[in-house]
Amino acid sequence: MRIDFSGVCHSDIHTAHGDWGPQHYPLVTGHEMAGVVTAVGAEVSRFKVGDRVGVGTYVDSCRTCEECRAGREQYCINSALFTYGNPIPSYADAADYPGGYPKGGYSTGIVVRENYVYPIPKEIDLKHAGPIMCAGVTVWSALRNWDIARGSRVGILGVGGLGHLAIQLAHALGAEVTGFTTSAEKKSDIRRFGAADVVVNSDPDQMAKYTRHFDFILDTIPATVPLDPYLSLLKRGGTLCRVGIDKTTIANEFGAFSLTSAQNSLAGSNVGSVRETHEVLQFAARYGIRPQVQVVPARQVGTVWPKVVDKAARYRFVLDMSDLR
Amino acid sequence: MRIDFSGVCHSDIHTAHGDWGPQHYPLVTGHEMAGVVTAVGAEVSRFKVGDRVGVGTYVDSCRTCEECRAGREQYCINSALFTYGNPIPSYADAADYPGGYPKGGYSTGIVVRENYVYPIPKEIDLKHAGPIMCAGVTVWSALRNWDIARGSRVGILGVGGLGHLAIQLAHALGAEVTGFTTSAEKKSDIRRFGAADVVVNSDPDQMAKYTRHFDFILDTIPATVPLDPYLSLLKRGGTLCRVGIDKTTIANEFGAFSLTSAQNSLAGSNVGSVRETHEVLQFAARYGIRPQVQVVPARQVGTVWPKVVDKAARYRFVLDMSDLR
Repeated sequence: MRIDFSGVCHSDIHTAHGDWGPQHYPLVTGHEMAGVVTAVGAEVSRFKVGDRVGVGTYVDSCRTCEECRAGREQYCINSALFTYGNPIPSYADAADYPGGYPKGGYSTGIVVRENYVYPIPKEIDLKHAGPIMCAGVTVWSALRNWDIARGSRVGILGVGGLGHLAIQLAHALGAEVTGFTTSAEKKSDIRRFGAADVVVNSDPDQMAKYTRHFDFILDTIPATVPLDPYLSLLKRGGTLCRVGIDKTTIANEFGAFSLTSAQNSLAGSNVGSVRETHEVLQFAARYGIRPQVQVVPARQVGTVWPKVVDKAARYRFVLDMSDLR
Repeated sequence: MRIDFSGVCHSDIHTAHGDWGPQHYPLVTGHEMAGVVTAVGAEVSRFKVGDRVGVGTYVDSCRTCEECRAGREQYCINSALFTYGNPIPSYADAADYPGGYPKGGYSTGIVVRENYVYPIPKEIDLKHAGPIMCAGVTVWSALRNWDIARGSRVGILGVGGLGHLAIQLAHALGAEVTGFTTSAEKKSDIRRFGAADVVVNSDPDQMAKYTRHFDFILDTIPATVPLDPYLSLLKRGGTLCRVGIDKTTIANEFGAFSLTSAQNSLAGSNVGSVRETHEVLQFAARYGIRPQVQVVPARQVGTVWPKVVDKAARYRFVLDMSDLR
């Protein structure tokens, strides 16, 4: 496929900086690709040249383990082949990946097995499609796994690339959504995304209003934050799920009773399955859910990354890869 | 009620030592009481003098909040009145608690509202009943909340007062149970309690055998242990639930990916509801599940506590309160 647009995810930055372990350079990051099919192999049955398609956070999985057979490829027991930087798992043919590592979406093109390629619904512009397949499906998978539906009370921590889609998706699922942000100037945006209320994290009075209120809190912050203030906002049996990931080891400091006192859970969730990626693209198309993007020429990536780290993205930078052609 | 036997729980020690915050002395610990009704008030309808009864970890709750109405009194929004050391909540009459704090089971008698008193099934000796209403119901509530049933794969961390009952209960529910212990000499006991296998925590080869194996791991250890080695034993979507509690604040250090990489949860659970306490007493009676106890005269409590801390209990000390009469 020709890559027309490629989203910028905080994971690209963490990976390149070696926050999640040593990397092999040259590294080509990017796992939010949207473009057009330019050629198909002999065994491809689902796509033809000219189709609008996308690729997300992984490009292969073993397809034989319990998780793959259950349609949860991202949790493949033999390791999904994540789109960049991943060692080649034993089930894959290393010859398919020159240099010994897969290369990602900050590129003009990519070759991917058809099972891990998604058709983009006609309602969705290519510039909007990439972030739905990483940021979007990551929050979608968590919302669906924890059965968020009409009547659920959901808190979204952090309103960046993941959070601004999570608010829209949870709202469209029928939940009462509250956005939590450190950036007071995002308030009107957050309401526009569908939140019924916005809490500025630093205000203890606003926080106290929601004591034991939420069924589910989704933490999209790609850094470690104190958990106690949020755990106390969960109803009995509620879950705080983290999808934002910090550096390799984190000290999750919280009180000895913070989980026991209301039978709560601290959970994690990683991207989404193939089925869930198809699902969230369809759902976004149907309910008018789109990432709010800033499209920049690909060569400007060096100026974009520091803005992401500084929480200046509103709300997802997308690289225009035609800049490289 | 006259208290004939009173179990010794590690919580008694943590509380008395101020591990969970400052205490008000004199403090009377003990929340695993079994004995006989000696008098009933005018409004008591469920008990008569001579009935064999028990009292567990709380003696009142508001009975009007969402959690109480749902039959989860231990999570009462207005705070359950825990059996000792607890400030008196607003819904209770402070005059009922001389000294301003409730006093627990290391005593010859107690007066308790009938809703929080449990009839002891005739199959269960009074000396065995107390630990079922704290250690027993604590693990029962967690096993039931996480739907442990035939075919579930369950790991039990720590084989002490809670753990040895958890193994018996999970086994009787039909689960495949593996016991994890630091004490290799407990192996034959652990198998006798119903575990299909025993893993000595310090052996990495034994641990590795269970990678991504368990649906549920119940951590009964009343101290902080490294979590990563156990989180990696959970299947996709599995939960590690802690019911053992350490001091006030714990640094739950684990890797940034330890929960996300297989969509796992770290949870907590606190004792059990009134209904669950009736239920576990009936279940224990029916399936022959008993705590393994060492009965000692009440005045020897000072020699017993250090043994509990030194992991020398096999598996629950029970005080014979007739020693005080």
